[in-house]
Amino acid sequence: MDYVYGPGRNHLFVPGPVNIPEPVLRAMNRNNEDYRSPAVPAMTKILLEDVKKIFKTTTGTSFMIPTTGTGAWESALTNTLSPGDRIVSFLIGQFSLLWIDQQQRLNFKVDVVESEWGQGANLDILASKLAEDTAHTIKAICIVHNETATGVTNNLAQVRRILDEYRHPALFLVDGVSSICALDFRMDEWGVDVALTGSQKALSLPTGIGIVCASPKALEASKTAKSVRVFFDWNDYLKFYKLGTYWPYTPSIQLLYGLRTALDLIFEEGLDNVIARHSRLGKATRLAVEAWGLKNCTQSEEWFSDTVTAVLVPPNIDSTEIVRRAWKRYNLSLGLGLNKIAGKVFRIGHLGNLNELQLLGCLAGVEMVLRDVGYPVKLGSGVAAASAYFQNNTPLIPSRI
Amino acid sequence: MDYVYGPGRNHLFVPGPVNIPEPVLRAMNRNNEDYRSPAVPAMTKILLEDVKKIFKTTTGTSFMIPTTGTGAWESALTNTLSPGDRIVSFLIGQFSLLWIDQQQRLNFKVDVVESEWGQGANLDILASKLAEDTAHTIKAICIVHNETATGVTNNLAQVRRILDEYRHPALFLVDGVSSICALDFRMDEWGVDVALTGSQKALSLPTGIGIVCASPKALEASKTAKSVRVFFDWNDYLKFYKLGTYWPYTPSIQLLYGLRTALDLIFEEGLDNVIARHSRLGKATRLAVEAWGLKNCTQSEEWFSDTVTAVLVPPNIDSTEIVRRAWKRYNLSLGLGLNKIAGKVFRIGHLGNLNELQLLGCLAGVEMVLRDVGYPVKLGSGVAAASAYFQNNTPLIPSRI
Amino acid sequence: MDYVYGPGRNHLFVPGPVNIPEPVLRAMNRNNEDYRSPAVPAMTKILLEDVKKIFKTTTGTSFMIPTTGTGAWESALTNTLSPGDRIVSFLIGQFSLLWIDQQQRLNFKVDVVESEWGQGANLDILASKLAEDTAHTIKAICIVHNETATGVTNNLAQVRRILDEYRHPALFLVDGVSSICALDFRMDEWGVDVALTGSQKALSLPTGIGIVCASPKALEASKTAKSVRVFFDWNDYLKFYKLGTYWPYTPSIQLLYGLRTALDLIFEEGLDNVIARHSRLGKATRLAVEAWGLKNCTQSEEWFSDTVTAVLVPPNIDSTEIVRRAWKRYNLSLGLGLNKIAGKVFRIGHLGNLNELQLLGCLAGVEMVLRDVGYPVKLGSGVAAASAYFQNNTPLIPSRI
Amino acid sequence: MDYVYGPGRNHLFVPGPVNIPEPVLRAMNRNNEDYRSPAVPAMTKILLEDVKKIFKTTTGTSFMIPTTGTGAWESALTNTLSPGDRIVSFLIGQFSLLWIDQQQRLNFKVDVVESEWGQGANLDILASKLAEDTAHTIKAICIVHNETATGVTNNLAQVRRILDEYRHPALFLVDGVSSICALDFRMDEWGVDVALTGSQKALSLPTGIGIVCASPKALEASKTAKSVRVFFDWNDYLKFYKLGTYWPYTPSIQLLYGLRTALDLIFEEGLDNVIARHSRLGKATRLAVEAWGLKNCTQSEEWFSDTVTAVLVPPNIDSTEIVRRAWKRYNLSLGLGLNKIAGKVFRIGHLGNLNELQLLGCLAGVEMVLRDVGYPVKLGSGVAAASAYFQNNTPLIPSRI
Repeated sequence: MDYVYGPGRNHLFVPGPVNIPEPVLRAMNRNNEDYRSPAVPAMTKILLEDVKKIFKTTTGTSFMIPTTGTGAWESALTNTLSPGDRIVSFLIGQFSLLWIDQQQRLNFKVDVVESEWGQGANLDILASKLAEDTAHTIKAICIVHNETATGVTNNLAQVRRILDEYRHPALFLVDGVSSICALDFRMDEWGVDVALTGSQKALSLPTGIGIVCASPKALEASKTAKSVRVFFDWNDYLKFYKLGTYWPYTPSIQLLYGLRTALDLIFEEGLDNVIARHSRLGKATRLAVEAWGLKNCTQSEEWFSDTVTAVLVPPNIDSTEIVRRAWKRYNLSLGLGLNKIAGKVFRIGHLGNLNELQLLGCLAGVEMVLRDVGYPVKLGSGVAAASAYFQNNTPLIPSRI
Repeated sequence: MDYVYGPGRNHLFVPGPVNIPEPVLRAMNRNNEDYRSPAVPAMTKILLEDVKKIFKTTTGTSFMIPTTGTGAWESALTNTLSPGDRIVSFLIGQFSLLWIDQQQRLNFKVDVVESEWGQGANLDILASKLAEDTAHTIKAICIVHNETATGVTNNLAQVRRILDEYRHPALFLVDGVSSICALDFRMDEWGVDVALTGSQKALSLPTGIGIVCASPKALEASKTAKSVRVFFDWNDYLKFYKLGTYWPYTPSIQLLYGLRTALDLIFEEGLDNVIARHSRLGKATRLAVEAWGLKNCTQSEEWFSDTVTAVLVPPNIDSTEIVRRAWKRYNLSLGLGLNKIAGKVFRIGHLGNLNELQLLGCLAGVEMVLRDVGYPVKLGSGVAAASAYFQNNTPLIPSRI
Repeated sequence: MDYVYGPGRNHLFVPGPVNIPEPVLRAMNRNNEDYRSPAVPAMTKILLEDVKKIFKTTTGTSFMIPTTGTGAWESALTNTLSPGDRIVSFLIGQFSLLWIDQQQRLNFKVDVVESEWGQGANLDILASKLAEDTAHTIKAICIVHNETATGVTNNLAQVRRILDEYRHPALFLVDGVSSICALDFRMDEWGVDVALTGSQKALSLPTGIGIVCASPKALEASKTAKSVRVFFDWNDYLKFYKLGTYWPYTPSIQLLYGLRTALDLIFEEGLDNVIARHSRLGKATRLAVEAWGLKNCTQSEEWFSDTVTAVLVPPNIDSTEIVRRAWKRYNLSLGLGLNKIAGKVFRIGHLGNLNELQLLGCLAGVEMVLRDVGYPVKLGSGVAAASAYFQNNTPLIPSRI
Repeated sequence: MDYVYGPGRNHLFVPGPVNIPEPVLRAMNRNNEDYRSPAVPAMTKILLEDVKKIFKTTTGTSFMIPTTGTGAWESALTNTLSPGDRIVSFLIGQFSLLWIDQQQRLNFKVDVVESEWGQGANLDILASKLAEDTAHTIKAICIVHNETATGVTNNLAQVRRILDEYRHPALFLVDGVSSICALDFRMDEWGVDVALTGSQKALSLPTGIGIVCASPKALEASKTAKSVRVFFDWNDYLKFYKLGTYWPYTPSIQLLYGLRTALDLIFEEGLDNVIARHSRLGKATRLAVEAWGLKNCTQSEEWFSDTVTAVLVPPNIDSTEIVRRAWKRYNLSLGLGLNKIAGKVFRIGHLGNLNELQLLGCLAGVEMVLRDVGYPVKLGSGVAAASAYFQNNTPLIPSRI
């Protein structure tokens, strides 16, 4: 019997781990296999190519590491940089904070560019730092594409433009954990050197694969990077890629088959349609928040996130109570406010394998919870705003036309 | 790859087969087993006792037949009646119609008591028939507890009162397919002689088990009933019950384990809480229908069904188009109008393992579809009405308090 | 937690229900679906065509009935015959006995042609009966292709030859429960009128679908057959086939998807290769039995079954104890001796999704059990005999060459 | 459809990843969950206690890290040691080699004590090194309990005795990847400071959790250890343990539930019975090898491994061909010879959720493959030797008595 069973389905709207589609659950429902048989390398080879499509890279090299996003971060940093290297990093929320903490503990010299939580990365400061850095002491720019704690999406194209403007050779390292495969992400076009995501986010799998793509420039950097690394060392992978056996250590057979199916579903829907669907879900959520008379934690439209919305609650309400109550009464899982904004925001994750009616159920639930905790929301108001948008903008399901 | 894949979950709101809870899916995810080993009879023995709880019978004998509801009907009739026997049967919608068709083809003499679709069984006519029948030529009363086509719940306690009033010995046979384990059903208290349901309804399993309970009087009747039967013969079961091997032919191992878990979930929630939850879902649905300015196919409150709501659409709208569009655009599965009311109603099934937010997602979807087909519903109106009711009436999930 | 857990896999060697391949388990691991949506009929239509391939019929009409083999028997009989019709039926073991019991209870006049258990159907008597029956009072010949209780395979081609010789128009009804999709079965070539199997046998699914194929002549007979039937009535199916909705009542969604995958696996392996594999497994089992110094219940090579072997034990040994001990000590499930031969034989089922090493594990287990119960078998002897055959006759797995 | 489908089950006898029991597959067959809800921490808390039982430690602190065995190694080293620290490490096969490689790349000063492959760790050299090291420059002893490449089990009790004899304070770090939960392992009694295993080994789960236990002394060492670490840092875990949320980053929900069930199965069987079962499987395998006239790669009985047997093949045979053929013809997965002994040995993994008949099937398969590649083994000989042992030593399955 499960822990804390409640009737009906759990409504999972945390921004990760997200809902797994049934075909993926099915694909993973299997015994182990010998990963040294011909089958697993053959499957791996194709997967390594296919994951590159969700990064929109053809020149990158992909790694599927048995780890989490935190491990993928570490892989990105230690393979490209040496202790003492100067990097510019943007602190805009809890996850960028944690990455910066990692950067510092890995002994890099980090120029932390801080914004108020709810704002995007301050790219003006980036520009001025690059302008000053004619000696090219800055070795890397580290930035989260989408800050999961605040629902802020940074403008990566603009980062690339600034780097180009100053002809600065710094590596461009991107945490795409809550963006890749849900937001528009263009590794090659934007000249990203390392990008990474985790299987439990937009790919809608269980936790367990950190997917990292490295540009040729990043691979080149890895040859001289002096950061100590073994488990996360790309070279161990590259050695096995050459051998055609692909795995320096045992992968999860189940996750490989799950990833195969997850990609199949994404390609069947069409990556651009997946991104459009996230855009639709994000927009509808924001319309609901507005209808409720609440504020988005994200302070400006330019940074609105289509994968997670952090909603500010009035000062007299504890957002933690909203999350607790949603789970206890309505079997609805929302995201907590973290760190600085704990108690002040709750988060609606709208990424992964999710559709319009699932979100509307969530929004209806949030409305009830808001009333439960004393906020006089008009029931149905957010749902109405979101539905109006959906009704005008949702395409027919292609396979059913 | 699945047929007709759409992103996110399918919103399944047909009145059967219904949503299967994850713990039940897990329980069924297993290889076959020897059903003649000691394990399967041991499990069967307990299941036969436990299923009686959802019928609220202690004196009945239960049968778990590898068939559908149609087969369970046939089992109820052929084990208790002989060709030519006179029975009174109520025609109030498509499923009672089909049962009557079966009764006639099995060569019983059926007094069909017809009501307008949307009304309950005409029990006044029953009373007058029983009054006249001093010779006790009527051998059985056949009635559906809940007509799935129209969302009409008949008053079984009243049927018993009438039978008692006339001290009539007719057998009382009940189709509880869309009621048992969701609506208040009291086999012993109401003196029901045979009651039956199907695994794919309120038990929230796949199709495949017809569950039939027979009163001592029904078992007695089976000894002289002359209807030809083999597969559906209770005696073959009773013979194997005595042997302690329980199965005259091969059961589905998967469904037995699934049923075990389904019952565990129901008992953990509490049968009365399960019934209260259905009452809540039914009430909320009706409030939404009202808010939409639409009519319930069920013509009077006394017959309102808490497991399925048939919604009448305005004459200019084809309800079939609503169902089609819901599926094609919103991955929402609604029930069609059947036979006489095809095109005139669509149905929302709200039975089985389902919670408030799932229903609200469905209602929000219906609103969008209604606009899609040209009915000027106010978006959010039904959701608001339903939520208002839920917010005042939904208990905390007990395991999470 | 399971009942009676033992470490490692259960070795399932009863002749049904049999081992389900992992891809089929995966395919069935799914929520319910609306069976009135366009998807399920589309899938059903193709399945109805594809199941005909395992019957080797192109002219037959197939039915997938939510029932067991016993129900499929009833479907075959009641759709083609009228009460009082004379049929010739062969009693050669427990399953033919049960079918005959059904025939009699359904009020047919059965000429029972009995053989000693361990022998095949006495076709000489059939010939003489047909020779005498110039008035064509015999309406049907009923025969099991493979008697699961004794491991006897009847010669159906010979039955057809005899029918043809006497130009007798009797219907030819075949129980193919433990043969179809494992033994060579040729519905069209042999002029079989109704053939049937169950999903839990060679198809390697859970119990729950009785698959019946009817020849044009059988369909024609169904128009005048007067046996009472509703649940099993082909006409209800045919009506829905014409409508394109295919289902007179709710099918098991899970079994449909499971059947789809089961057929895909069979077609990928190749039906003839499936049959050859069963032939290999049967031959190897018989070689082992011989090496153990034990006798096959089947008295002559002409009737040897490639799907089940019934092994006679010496008089001082109780075969029931062998089966019990196999399960209790080695997690091995063998088939009991039934009825007349209870205690005298145990059965090794070798049908369905099974390979050589699985069988060798079983044979090694049987050897240990034989010693456990006091039979002085030479350990390894049966395995050696079987392996020698396998090593000379097992092809490479085609997908791995 | 799967890659490289073959009928029947795959016979998985590599020493990892190993066979997953059905109840564990079922437990993992689930959607994601919010790992910040009350449920996941509550489950985690109990798991952290329960995993300690398979290490036989009550004083240790456990970590369940989303990584593989290689990551668990890194966690053990970097949390307890500082760059430049001197350690003694034993090279006896491919996995000890890889660990030493990691130790060197992590900048420790490694005294490599090499043995011939097939022999255990040379503890005499350890003794002499400790005797000389009165200044206590040796900071840690690193040793694999069971070398998976050669099937050699080291004597850890003896290591502890030597350390005690010289009152040497070096940390005692143990790779228990292919031993813990299958071989007798006593963390507390043997004074092991860090022990580790991977979920895909004796626990019979998918790959994905590196389980590490640290003694109080190891935890103390972690406070001053200067090795750079973030993802693998125990302190991040300890911080969240204190908070009661337990996870510094997202765990695999599926693996947690899988681990819960895996431990339940182990505790139901009894850890000592699990170990006895492995002892039985190991002994039987060695008897088979002897019967085949082949040599065990392990050169002396004192080092025989009960989880994996590496079998030396005659010089004219390429063991790689044995592995290839087993897979291509018999759906049998054996372990390759690695590095120095590539082509010279094949390996039979006999660890995890496995029973006697599964192993006998494997042994029968190996016999056929041996003949296929030209080695004149007597078919049945190994099976006979193994069965004779099993038949005398296998207890009844307790739940079935």
